[in-house]
Amino acid sequence: MKKHNFNAGPSVLPQVVIENAAKAVIEFGGTGLSLLSISHRTPEFEAVVNEAQALFRELMQIPDNYKIFFVGGGMSTQFFHIPANFLGKKAGYINTGVWTKKSIKEAKRYGEVQVLATSEDKNFTYIPKGFDIPEDLDYLYICTNNTIYGSEYHTDIDSPVPLIADMSSDIMSRPVDVSKYAMIVGGAQKNLSCAGVSFVIIRDDMLQKVVRDVPTMVNVNTHVDNNSMFNTPPVFPIFVMNETLKWLKSIGGLKEMYRINKEKADLLYNEIDRNPLFRGTVEKEDRSLMNICFIMAEGKEDLAPEFMAFAKERGMVGIKGHRLVGGFRASCYNALPKESVEALVACMQEFEQLHK
Amino acid sequence: MKKHNFNAGPSVLPQVVIENAAKAVIEFGGTGLSLLSISHRTPEFEAVVNEAQALFRELMQIPDNYKIFFVGGGMSTQFFHIPANFLGKKAGYINTGVWTKKSIKEAKRYGEVQVLATSEDKNFTYIPKGFDIPEDLDYLYICTNNTIYGSEYHTDIDSPVPLIADMSSDIMSRPVDVSKYAMIVGGAQKNLSCAGVSFVIIRDDMLQKVVRDVPTMVNVNTHVDNNSMFNTPPVFPIFVMNETLKWLKSIGGLKEMYRINKEKADLLYNEIDRNPLFRGTVEKEDRSLMNICFIMAEGKEDLAPEFMAFAKERGMVGIKGHRLVGGFRASCYNALPKESVEALVACMQEFEQLHK
Repeated sequence: MKKHNFNAGPSVLPQVVIENAAKAVIEFGGTGLSLLSISHRTPEFEAVVNEAQALFRELMQIPDNYKIFFVGGGMSTQFFHIPANFLGKKAGYINTGVWTKKSIKEAKRYGEVQVLATSEDKNFTYIPKGFDIPEDLDYLYICTNNTIYGSEYHTDIDSPVPLIADMSSDIMSRPVDVSKYAMIVGGAQKNLSCAGVSFVIIRDDMLQKVVRDVPTMVNVNTHVDNNSMFNTPPVFPIFVMNETLKWLKSIGGLKEMYRINKEKADLLYNEIDRNPLFRGTVEKEDRSLMNICFIMAEGKEDLAPEFMAFAKERGMVGIKGHRLVGGFRASCYNALPKESVEALVACMQEFEQLHK
Repeated sequence: MKKHNFNAGPSVLPQVVIENAAKAVIEFGGTGLSLLSISHRTPEFEAVVNEAQALFRELMQIPDNYKIFFVGGGMSTQFFHIPANFLGKKAGYINTGVWTKKSIKEAKRYGEVQVLATSEDKNFTYIPKGFDIPEDLDYLYICTNNTIYGSEYHTDIDSPVPLIADMSSDIMSRPVDVSKYAMIVGGAQKNLSCAGVSFVIIRDDMLQKVVRDVPTMVNVNTHVDNNSMFNTPPVFPIFVMNETLKWLKSIGGLKEMYRINKEKADLLYNEIDRNPLFRGTVEKEDRSLMNICFIMAEGKEDLAPEFMAFAKERGMVGIKGHRLVGGFRASCYNALPKESVEALVACMQEFEQLHK
């Protein structure tokens, strides 16, 4: 049976990426060796790192005064790397869910944390707006897409202080104005690669703003100065990321990716809004294009386990909602084919007929 | 042409591991999905983590009062994790090369570092012995195999204080008495996997000895308490590691692995000692079974570039010595077939004939 992969991460990747990754495991780039057995210092792999950086710059239109690097570990590691590097006195955080709460917790070890706004009052079902940003902050930290709750910032906010964004789960899903950010960071295992590598986009002036003597591997300068090669980088995840970036370019880049993502999300949100058995959990204007959360409509809650089984029988994978929200979550990352969304919508309509 | 992979790391892996990894990239464990696209919280992947831990325990005969975990990032990250967790006042380090120097540098941020012994006086061509170990140290740190210089501890030293060992480049190459160590740690990309994951074996009492409030991802307890699943672990490198551990078990475990490694190393060291064109760089009793360093004999130095080209033409990969030692380095990790060593020896003999 055809599987429809709605996993929240690690998650669906383009088929061509998977095939090229499997081939490279057997033999890589004419070296006569497996990608798993080559030195990371070979010209063939250095070319992969350089190509991935160049594609980042091209696809996201990253200005020249930004550096890009890749490093092992995921966003949980970056939660403390960011304040370790940049929190001297006081930083501002916008609390939009579990991941920002975790980043706030790590930041408090390094200085004062001002939570400028939070949507915790309504279980993180919206993105706070209209908050003041004090000008004496070392930085403002946001998470642009909240995987667990299905909320997403749809504008690049203006900040008078350096804006640092965790884009783990919506990186390259749409064009962003990079010039509004001082740093964009995330784990790659949703839209860009398998698990095991993080990407960091950082404005040059931030490299001078490291406020304390941090461990070598924590210091952002280490990775910039050594072109992601200070230590042995996660070779395979970087290769997979580069293949995904090539695929993104081949389909037409981020504008086209955004058009496709919008189309997929509209398809599913329209069904959620139309179908009397279901309802969305997030304020309409803040709904994520990546993680689409919905629950059974009022009075229909008992049908949830039946729908879960019904969908599973039809090949849907990973649509169980996070325990903090309940219900269902369909993660519709870049590589999810439109036909998978259509299959889920058909499934919801079929289920509706059964319960008329 | 058949390649003989003497890379220092990432390095040669068993062919069966490479083939199984390629297959899993296409489809993993009956899930109908790529290993790269599954959730790390699926029972199928949790089984991989649990199997890898169990094989660690079985192969290394790890006593019950030790925990095993896997975490993203490599040994360069562990260089600061170790003192961050355990260096309260004073730690002892044995300096046997670049990697211990780097770990000493990171440790100094956290407390006093006593270098109890060093082989720097002779460019790290031996392992210091007979040093005193003060009983007031928080721990004693060693690197059991020095990849760059080709030296290796051949006994598990007795220490009155907790002994912490970086075994990145000789893990599971031979049986060790785990009970003599408080912690064994390393990057997996030499004997166990591709790049992107570290292994940590830690005695239970150490879990109570964390001396400061470290970031969540740095604290050893985080990973023990969450069975390597606090955050998204590096799924693919862990899978590859587990396949390698299964291979190690299938060939007869660490005693047999040691016999094979000894046989391969003897073959090459005997040729180095016999062949008038070459000489080894390390004291005989401290020679590494993993990284075999040699240079041209006195008066023959000019032949080095010619031998490099000669060997390369015959399929030898990765035998250029590290710039700090010069000459040649043949890394003979677990998965390197004996025939590759035989091919290199044949190459050295052929070269000798040419220059009689």
